[in-house]
Formats: sequence, structure tokens, C-alpha cells
Amino acid sequence: MSNGKVRVGILGATGMVGQRFVQLLEKHPDFEITALAASDRSQGKTYSEACTWRLVGDMPAFAKAMVVQPPQPPLDCDIVVSSLPSDVARASEEAFARAGYPVISNASSFRMDEDVPLLIPEINADHLNVLDRQKSKRGFTTGYIVTNPNCSTIIMALALAPLHAKFGIEAVIATTMQAVSGAGYPGVPSLDVVDNVLPFIDGEEPKMESETRKILGRLENSAFENAPFPVSAQCHRVNVADGHMVAVRIKLAKRVSIEEVRDALASYRSVPQELKLHTAPEHPIIVRNEKDRPQPRMDRDAGGGMSVTVGRLFPDNVFDYRFVVLGHNTIRGAAGATILNAELLRARGLLLGKSGAPAQSPAQAPAQAPAPAQARVR
Amino acid sequence: MSNGKVRVGILGATGMVGQRFVQLLEKHPDFEITALAASDRSQGKTYSEACTWRLVGDMPAFAKAMVVQPPQPPLDCDIVVSSLPSDVARASEEAFARAGYPVISNASSFRMDEDVPLLIPEINADHLNVLDRQKSKRGFTTGYIVTNPNCSTIIMALALAPLHAKFGIEAVIATTMQAVSGAGYPGVPSLDVVDNVLPFIDGEEPKMESETRKILGRLENSAFENAPFPVSAQCHRVNVADGHMVAVRIKLAKRVSIEEVRDALASYRSVPQELKLHTAPEHPIIVRNEKDRPQPRMDRDAGGGMSVTVGRLFPDNVFDYRFVVLGHNTIRGAAGATILNAELLRARGLLLGKSGAPAQSPAQAPAQAPAPAQARVR
Amino acid sequence: MSNGKVRVGILGATGMVGQRFVQLLEKHPDFEITALAASDRSQGKTYSEACTWRLVGDMPAFAKAMVVQPPQPPLDCDIVVSSLPSDVARASEEAFARAGYPVISNASSFRMDEDVPLLIPEINADHLNVLDRQKSKRGFTTGYIVTNPNCSTIIMALALAPLHAKFGIEAVIATTMQAVSGAGYPGVPSLDVVDNVLPFIDGEEPKMESETRKILGRLENSAFENAPFPVSAQCHRVNVADGHMVAVRIKLAKRVSIEEVRDALASYRSVPQELKLHTAPEHPIIVRNEKDRPQPRMDRDAGGGMSVTVGRLFPDNVFDYRFVVLGHNTIRGAAGATILNAELLRARGLLLGKSGAPAQSPAQAPAQAPAPAQARVR
Amino acid sequence: MSNGKVRVGILGATGMVGQRFVQLLEKHPDFEITALAASDRSQGKTYSEACTWRLVGDMPAFAKAMVVQPPQPPLDCDIVVSSLPSDVARASEEAFARAGYPVISNASSFRMDEDVPLLIPEINADHLNVLDRQKSKRGFTTGYIVTNPNCSTIIMALALAPLHAKFGIEAVIATTMQAVSGAGYPGVPSLDVVDNVLPFIDGEEPKMESETRKILGRLENSAFENAPFPVSAQCHRVNVADGHMVAVRIKLAKRVSIEEVRDALASYRSVPQELKLHTAPEHPIIVRNEKDRPQPRMDRDAGGGMSVTVGRLFPDNVFDYRFVVLGHNTIRGAAGATILNAELLRARGLLLGKSGAPAQSPAQAPAQAPAPAQARVR
Repeated sequence: MSNGKVRVGILGATGMVGQRFVQLLEKHPDFEITALAASDRSQGKTYSEACTWRLVGDMPAFAKAMVVQPPQPPLDCDIVVSSLPSDVARASEEAFARAGYPVISNASSFRMDEDVPLLIPEINADHLNVLDRQKSKRGFTTGYIVTNPNCSTIIMALALAPLHAKFGIEAVIATTMQAVSGAGYPGVPSLDVVDNVLPFIDGEEPKMESETRKILGRLENSAFENAPFPVSAQCHRVNVADGHMVAVRIKLAKRVSIEEVRDALASYRSVPQELKLHTAPEHPIIVRNEKDRPQPRMDRDAGGGMSVTVGRLFPDNVFDYRFVVLGHNTIRGAAGATILNAELLRARGLLLGKSGAPAQSPAQAPAQAPAPAQARVR
Repeated sequence: MSNGKVRVGILGATGMVGQRFVQLLEKHPDFEITALAASDRSQGKTYSEACTWRLVGDMPAFAKAMVVQPPQPPLDCDIVVSSLPSDVARASEEAFARAGYPVISNASSFRMDEDVPLLIPEINADHLNVLDRQKSKRGFTTGYIVTNPNCSTIIMALALAPLHAKFGIEAVIATTMQAVSGAGYPGVPSLDVVDNVLPFIDGEEPKMESETRKILGRLENSAFENAPFPVSAQCHRVNVADGHMVAVRIKLAKRVSIEEVRDALASYRSVPQELKLHTAPEHPIIVRNEKDRPQPRMDRDAGGGMSVTVGRLFPDNVFDYRFVVLGHNTIRGAAGATILNAELLRARGLLLGKSGAPAQSPAQAPAQAPAPAQARVR
Repeated sequence: MSNGKVRVGILGATGMVGQRFVQLLEKHPDFEITALAASDRSQGKTYSEACTWRLVGDMPAFAKAMVVQPPQPPLDCDIVVSSLPSDVARASEEAFARAGYPVISNASSFRMDEDVPLLIPEINADHLNVLDRQKSKRGFTTGYIVTNPNCSTIIMALALAPLHAKFGIEAVIATTMQAVSGAGYPGVPSLDVVDNVLPFIDGEEPKMESETRKILGRLENSAFENAPFPVSAQCHRVNVADGHMVAVRIKLAKRVSIEEVRDALASYRSVPQELKLHTAPEHPIIVRNEKDRPQPRMDRDAGGGMSVTVGRLFPDNVFDYRFVVLGHNTIRGAAGATILNAELLRARGLLLGKSGAPAQSPAQAPAQAPAPAQARVR
Repeated sequence: MSNGKVRVGILGATGMVGQRFVQLLEKHPDFEITALAASDRSQGKTYSEACTWRLVGDMPAFAKAMVVQPPQPPLDCDIVVSSLPSDVARASEEAFARAGYPVISNASSFRMDEDVPLLIPEINADHLNVLDRQKSKRGFTTGYIVTNPNCSTIIMALALAPLHAKFGIEAVIATTMQAVSGAGYPGVPSLDVVDNVLPFIDGEEPKMESETRKILGRLENSAFENAPFPVSAQCHRVNVADGHMVAVRIKLAKRVSIEEVRDALASYRSVPQELKLHTAPEHPIIVRNEKDRPQPRMDRDAGGGMSVTVGRLFPDNVFDYRFVVLGHNTIRGAAGATILNAELLRARGLLLGKSGAPAQSPAQAPAQAPAPAQARVR
């Protein structure tokens, strides 16, 4: 950290989300990648040998000659961000946390654990308060684990958050049309989506139904209390490269006008915007009024891929309102979400690094002091 | 009708649904096409000159040299089936009915009129009883108008029908993923669906929300009474050629087990099956238990395109059950639906032709006698 | 063979081409499937347990309870047809041939061997005469190996055959746009073809360039002599489920009119048509004159998937003529090709079965007697 | 031009290419849009009323309130850039040129006229010398017409240019796979490309075959002499949003090694790079060595959409070499091409504006002085 940047190790660096980490962190003002790790046969090779770059644009030059290491401590870094496959994530991430590294993970292994924050900085920054319990329960010292939700869940939860905060949500019915990049590479066989829709994504419906309630729930006395409303999710894979779309109906606790709903969505700002976190979009939610928006190809890159776009907001015959929300599944729904979490942790002074010392210089963390007062965002 | 077949005129013969009429009636045992009409600049040309054939397989030979006529009476036929564009359908179809022709229409113009049946033979064959009122009110003699619903509505309504009949439906929330052929040709611009989903289909949501209630409603004293449950529809266009998929949640009036729901769907048989109508599928509803079905490319042609396929039947967190239903939008959802209606009318002895005489020989209508007893299908 | 049918074992039965074999042989008049084998972990399971059916329509009932066996002799059958993956095909197919089974293979392992026919019955039925050399060289008794070409090669070769026979070809330049089903399942990752074209198919260009010359070459004194013209192939994968399209330019040895070219293509009939083989299309080549045909979705199923369709036939600025040819890659290009080969072998009396006795009753093989006279088709 | 910028009027401003003009000129250092015109029913409306914005990102704010005018002089601007439909382009563009405006056009009307430059600044900047003949022949004063080629032609011609300059080309065989955006909006019906390839693009093959030869030809004594090699083009529409791919075989006049070919392509720099024109890419041609590149989704945006990418460079069995070249059809192939032409004209001091005075301040045109020496680029 000679340059004052937090030194980051990427777990799962050769996968699609791992590549997004490398891309998004290449020119980050506060983070620099110092280690790449992967669980596959790429260990010992250079990143350029081990990894077929699958994002638009070229592999960042800095990463090409880095040697891919096993996803086990020690790694030469202050923190690790992880997009390991779920079958190896649990053991690897736990090992890093135990070895003193803050672990900021996109994997699903720990998301629903009772002492692990399922963090969307706009929504539940206060859930980080569970980390004391986590450390004490698991015997972690400087290390800990913070997760972000499933891709479609993040996108929907962002649209639900201001409505739940202002009006109270009583029920949510969500139907997704999800992009193929959500399954990584090789991921979805083309025969499943050419002239076709696949009405099944393994594990997705229960994830949306359970994670949403934890995200929008409360942390009371270091215990999570789920949001009190049920969520129903039907998930479909469509012939789209990037961009998850969710058709949503909501039942609200209060009678409110459609203008109030629209305003609550369009005016939504929260902790990342206040802290001016590097990856935070100016508008977490963009509301469009055209009759045929949002569309994946047109709206997925809004806000650098970190904004979600809401459209088709109408009163509903059965519930109160309906709308469609869309976001970039591998940016806001995965790699960008993890990085935004890291940025929040850094701003909160929680990136102590494995040495127990702050992983960034105080001068670069002006957001630390006021953080406690902002801890309760809802 | 020298060969005992009902002589059919096609209105809108050059469009996509019109071409399906020509294809499906080519070898029909009880109907023969004797006139082709269209509203566009094709009048006076032969069908092969006027019409670029857009279905798999070649234009049927019998049709090639037929001259396309204006969609105005008289036409040399006993009945007309219509897929005219909605802007010209109303005047043209009314003119034919007034001139004495039974009009069996796929157009939307008359669907919601209070004296017009919105017919799905499996569901509401008894709605034909409104025809007396229609004739008297409009001063028709031998002519009348019978319509079939919108494509996505038919597909969903077939799955709802046995559930409403057995258990009572209290609410329906439907989210569609619809094929591009539903918009005809040229129809949906490719830029709207390549790597994209379009969350808007003009007029589709209100059609599904209103038509479903009329279809599943009751005819009492020659007046339609809507089914008492609300319907919410969100409609999307996806990159699929044929096959509309609908993700459905239902709230039922009774507590029933998932086995009862599955049995009600899988065992569904009704009037067209009893009458062995030529176009009727043996199984109006096919229930599949694989985790990833139905799929448009795999299931749209089930039952010759006249069956709908239900899968992903599960208990729902918010409503009682959820499932996905899929059907072929231009066969069961359009041309096949209209032809099945014509077959029912013929079996019921209602195809009198413009002369007032039966448009088929009595010997070919064995289903007529028992028809009254079967009139109330629900 | 109690019912007089040839008893067939399928090697690679669980793959996409293996499933096509099962589908195409279900109601075959002369063949019946008596054994299913696969190289993967499905051995010992029933076919319905081992195999996720990926073709439109349901798995044939007869196959469901059959137990999948290892692809090693003995199998309870007279002949084997194979679509094994190329890495296991060589050893397995050789073992079956050595054990006395005629092996009719879609795999690439033996295609270019100097004693193995690369058979397209319309083009080079006389190449079967190499089998004597094959048996003697390899020490086979009743067994032998016959192969069919690569999918895109078959489709192009059918269009080249009548032109080479009548006018002589001097050079061929071919550019393909190939369907994803050609790579099997899971095959091509959807991210490679959504809003994309992949300009690379492993091994395809050299296959087209070498196989074409063997197919259209001559068998002289039991030695293959390649056709004397060079072939250039550039191969691309496009977002199409089924149907390979090839844009072709040809340089001919003679100056001929475009009408002569069209007639040579459209009038093409050969051995399978003369023998009325069950799977043989009436027209191996269909020539269409519309400006925008052939198209995969419209033309791939022509002739039950066994015809190829030629269109866009024009004089060329650089070579003599150009055209586009399209065919169904998993039917004419794979499973149907293998079965047509089996039908030819049966008609020629070459299906002796592993016992050395004819694998079909003489009464069912009327084509045997005249076969020698027809042996030289070109 | 109070701020020293050239004042631009857009003809065809509401179409897809017109929207690209608006997008690309929004922040241009040397041009500003001062008039919008269109031939359709949008005249008299504001641009935001008249135009459904179909590009990713929002309509530039500056354009929203501008009123769309008829495409007839006078317009309040120094020059016009045009993407009018070809049926109206000829009369409108001629009228502007006659009225004194430099007309820089993407339309096809004048491309092949014997006194009109068909300009690609990297290739034939010297063709601008024909403008004197044009003005004198047509009686233009300060006005003139400069065109850019068809989209697929530009992309291919860029790859051919250095090879023709260094080695001499003797023949070209090109097979295209073109994106749907090339046809504008609504353009290609989705039914034509879902699970399909369309082997026909109206007028495209003759355009590629004739325009290429003019572009790569010579201007001698104010007369164009076509490049002496024949071009064969087969054109196909595939299910891709943006990015035209061309599979190319070339026959060269000299025997050269593949390294020489690769170097000629990769090292290509020309007039726009020397003049540092704002829209000029640093590398007009990017050569990639991966086995599966270029791909439309991965490579179309290279160089801001102004570079073309070459890959799959191999010796060819029939001709000398083959390769695949890909470029962004609406940027390098249309709007960006027109703007680059405008930038070259400005740098050459040829944007006199309708008043006959330079349409830019001398201080902003440092490239003018050395321009004559660079006028002959080949």
C-alpha cells in the first residue's frame, strides 16, 4: 500500500465476474489488485495464459503477467474479493477470514448465515453492525466476511427499498427475464436460448425469495429480522447477453398515489451517494416514462452499469402497483456490487487489512468520522 | 358445397394468420376454401402474386391461382373466417354478417361486444346461446359474428378453465414472454428483440385482463357476467419466433393440494374432445414435470400446435400456486382457434350459410343432436 | 431379427445425434433398435434415466426402459451405428468391426483412412468397393467400417456432385454460417452467439477442404484418388438452432449457361432415389428462385430434413457461378446421413450381420440383384 | 460560427444514422449542429417530439428543442451532412450543393457518379481533386457533394487498401454476415432473423462489387479509373444488432509471406492519422491473433467504432490469403465515416461554407498548410 491504495486479491479471477473485478479495479482510485487466485487448473500460469478474456476490450496490461495462485491464504494483499464457484467458496473464504483478511464476496455460500451481512450499500449499510457478532462467534480477529446478494435480487431490491422505507411493502410478486451472462462462461448452452426461453434457473427462485427479505429486513440486537412480506419469484432465461429484467407487482401497506411511488423511486439517494463512493451511481434508480422502456440493450449500461432502470409503472388490477426494473447483472448484480461493498467498508474504516492496521491512509477516508451517524439508513 | 364441405371465404388471406388459415384448411375434411379476400393492394392479383408465403413449407397449390378479392360481400362461400387488421375488421365483418354470412373472426373488433361470443370451445361453448340476442339486436338474418380471444389470452385461459371450474379462481397474476410472430409480418423490428426484451405490446395487457374474465364468465339470460376475479397482466416480447409463454400465479377459492391442481389440468377434456372436432387436440392441456419445461421451441407444436403445455407447477409464497403455460400463438392462439370455433359451429348445426340452409350435409353433422345437452360445459 | 428387421445397436445413444438415431429409427420399416450404448456415466441406467431428451417431441416409448451399455462388443444387434465422440470412437468402432459387426459411423475418426468409404449414397455408392481391401488389410471378417462426412461437407457436396459430374469443377470457395446444434449439447455457449457470430469452428475448415475432395474423388483399383480441385472453407457459427448454410463460388471446367447449372441441380437423382431407400428424399436438391431463399428456419426441414435447398444462383464476378446451399445439419448432415448409408448397405446385401448371414431377409432386399450394374454412379 | 465551429445541418436527422450524427457531433471540437431536417412527417415538430431516440444513452439535450425542418435550402448552417433515404437524397442534396452548401453524404444516390468522390480518408483523400470538375460540370459555386461508401464496403475496403497499395490485388471474394442495424429502424423484421439467416440484402452485392473498385481506383486527369480487380460479394443478414463481418479471400499480384500481409494490415496509418483528425482511430486496422476473433459483440466498438478488426488470417487453398474483417456498421460504416470525411474537408480548407468564406477559423486549421503535399496518399 505504498501508494495509499488498498491491496486487493481476487478469488475466482479467471471467471466472468473475476474478469469484471479486474476490469473495474484497473483504474480505481483507492484499490489496486496485487494478487489473482483461482480454483481451477490455471494455478501457476500467468493470467494471460490462464484466462480467455471474455469482456469487451482487452485484458488490462497490468494483469497479464501476474501469476494465478491457489485460493488459499496467504496472498499478498490487504483484502480479498471473491467470485469463487459456490462449491469451493465456503472453505476458501472462511480460511481467508480466519487468516485475518476481510473477505468481500459475490458467492452465495455465506449469504444467508445469521452473522453475515447481505449488503447493498444503498439499502442496509447498518447490517455491517453484525460483524462484531460474526467475529466473536467465529473467532475471527481482523478478518470477516461480507456478501452481496444474487444478481436478480440486487436489481429488484434496489427498486423495492425506497417503497418499503416510505410506504411499507406487504407482498411482492416478481417474474424475471434474465441474461445468459448470469450463468458465466460457458454457462447457458445456446440451444437453450436460440428461439427459446428457459423457465428454470437453478436455485434462483429461492434465492430471490429469501435474500430479498434479509436485505430489506432489520438488524436488531445483532440479529437479523426478515422483512415481513412474502416474495414470490418465477425466473426465466432469455436470449439476452447482459441485463436482467424483473416484472414486479407490489402490495403496499399504505394507499399512495402513483406520483408518490414514482417520486420515491426517482428521488432515491442513500449512503453511497452521500459518501460519494467511487462506484456509486448518481441515481441508483432511473425512472423512465416511455411506454417501451426499460430494455436490456438500451438501459443496462445506465450509470456505468450501476443504476437500475424502472419503467412501465402502473396501477395493478390485483396488487397496488406494477413496474419493470432492469439492471446490469454482472456489474450492479455482481462485480460492481462487490466493489461498492468494498468501497463502503473502506469509507467506514473497516478495511483493517490482515495486519489489523487500516488498509488505507486516514487522509483518504474522510467518510469515516461521520459514519456512525449514518449507520442506520432506513 | 357439392362435395358436402362448407365453403369458406378467408378475410385477410395474405397476412400471417390468413396464411395459417390456408395451410390448416388445405386438407380439412369438412371445409374448403372458395374465396380469398384482403384489404391491401393485393386485390385483383392471384394469391401467389399477392402473397409472399411466410410459413414453413410451400403455398398450397390450390390457392395459387385464386384471385384475391376485396373483403366485402358478396363472396362465393357459405361462411367467412377473418383475420383482418382491426382497423378494417369492424366494418367488413359487420357487412358480411348483415349480408347473411356467419363470420368467425380472429380480429379484436367485436370481442368485447355484449352480444358477441368470445369463444374457446373447450371453455364456453354455451356462450353461443347469445347469438339469438345478437341477431335480433343487430337485425341479422342468417349471419352472425363469433370471435376468438387474443393469442396470449387463449393460452392462459385454457389453463385457468379447469381450475376455475373445479376450485374457483380468486385472482390471477400473469406475466408473458411472447413470440414475435404474434405481431405478424413485418411486425416486430429485429432491433427490438436482438439481445433485448421489449416490455410493451400495444393493447395486450388490457386484452388479457378483460377478455379472460369474459371467457371464463357466465351467460345468464343472454347477458354476459364476467368471472368475478381480477386479472393482472404484464406483457413482454422476446426473441422467439413462435410460442407464447405465460408465468401465472393463481389464488383459489378452495384449499386444494398440488396433486388436485395437477390432475385438474392434466385430465381436462371438454366439448371439442367429446365431439372429436377435427382440429381439437386429444389433450388440451399437457402437464410436464421436468424442471425446465415448457419451452417454446420444444413444446409449441404439441398436439399439432393446439395443446397448451403447463410446467413449473409449484406452491407460491404469495398466492396459492404458480405455473408456466405455453402454447403456439398463431395456431392455438389464432388460426387454429378460429377453425376450431368453425368446427364447433358446424357440429352444432349453426353454419347455416348465407342461404339459411345448413352449410353442411346432415349426415356429416352427427354431433348436432346431442349438442343441447352439452351446451353448458361448466 | 424375428420380424425380418435388421437389429441395430446405437453407439453414443445419449448425445444429440444418438437421439436423432432413436427418433428416426423408431418407425423404420427395415431397422429396429435392440441395443443402446454410450461412453459416458450413463452406463447401467435406463435410457430414460440416462438421457435428457432434447429433440422436439417425446422420447420414443420403446427406448425408455432399455439399459444403456458400454460401447464395446458384444451388443445384441446385427450392426452398430455410431455417433461416439471422436476421442473414443476410434477404439470402440474398430473393436466392433473386428468382432464382426458392420459399423456405420458419423464419427470423424476413420473418415480419411485410405480404406474407409466416406459415403454419401447419392454421390459415391461405388466407394463401397473399397470394403474388400479394408477387410483384408485390417483382418476383419464380417465386420467393416463405413463413415459419412462432416455435416457442412455433406450439405455442400450434394450441391457440388451434379455439377462436378456434368461440367467438372476446377475450384470451390465456401463460406459457412452454421447452426449451434452442430456442436451438440451443451455445445456452443450462448454468450458466443447472442448478438454475435463466431468465426471459428474447431476442425471444420480442414474437414470441409479435405473430405469434399475424397467424396467427389474416384476409387481406382481400390485406391482413392481425390477430386482434382482445391476447396477453400471459412466457417462461422451463427445464432441459429438447426440448418447449416453455405455460400459457394465455383469455377467450372466448361463454359455452361446458368440454365444448365440450374437444371443439373434441380434434376439431380441418384442411387438412393432409384433404390427408393426409405430415408432418401425424392429431390436431393431443391432449387428455389425467390430472391431471399434458402433460409434455415424455412428450408431446413425440406424433404424431411434430407433435401438440401439451393438458391441465390447467379453468375459470379470472379468465378463462374455462386449460390447458397442449406441443409439440416443433424438430419442430412448427421443422423439421417448415417441411416441412409445403412439403407444403402442393406439394399446392396452388405449387412451380413456379425454372424456372416444376411441381416435381412432376401425377400426384403429386392435392390440387391441390380446393384452391381448401378455401382458406378458417377 | 461565432465560436469558431463549423455550423452543421443534418439531413435525415430522425433516422438511425441521423441520430448517430447527433450523438457523434454533440461534443465535437470543430463542428456544431445548428439545423435538423428530415423528409418525413416530423417537420415542424421539435426533435424530441419527432424522433424516438434509438441509441444507447439519452438524446443529447441540445437537440431536444430544435425544430425539424424540411430538407431543402436554406438551412442555417455552413455545411450539410446527409443520411437521407436514397429516394429523396438525390434531389435534396443537389439542391443544397447548388445553393452553395458543401454536402457530405452517406446516401447512395451520387456515389457512383463520375464527378463525385467516394471518400474514405485513409484510402483516397486525393479523390477530392475531382471536386473542381464537379463544380464546373454542375455549375456549383461554393457547394459540392462528397459521399462515403456503403457500410460493408467501407469495412472491407479498409482491409484491402494497404494490401492493394503494397502488393497489388488481383481478385477479391467476399461473403458478408451483416447486422440488422444496417437496415435502419424498423428495418429488418424480426421473423427474418430469429433462428434464421437471410441470404439477401437489397442492392448490397452490386454496391460492394462496384464501390470497392472506385474507392481503390485512381483519379487520373479528373477521371476515375477503377481498380483493375474483380470483386465478388455474397451478402447475408444475421441475428446481430451492430457489426458487419466480412469473410474475405484475396489473390495478390505478388508472392508475399503471411507476415508481410499481417504487417501491412497492422501497421497501416494514413492521412487521418497524420492529420490527427478528431474521429480518426489511432489504428484503422487492428489485427487479432486469437483463433476466434473478430466477433461482432467483442470487436465492433474498437477504436470508438472507427477501427476495423482483422482476424483468421491464413493462407488459402484457392486464392492466396483469407481473413475475416469486422467493423461497426453505423459508426465506421455510416455516421462516423461521414464525419471523418467532414473532418478531412475541414483540414483541407474545403469547408468554405455557403458564403464562400472558410467555415472555420484559420487558427483552428493547422492541417491546411501541409495538406497539398499529402494529397496523394497512394
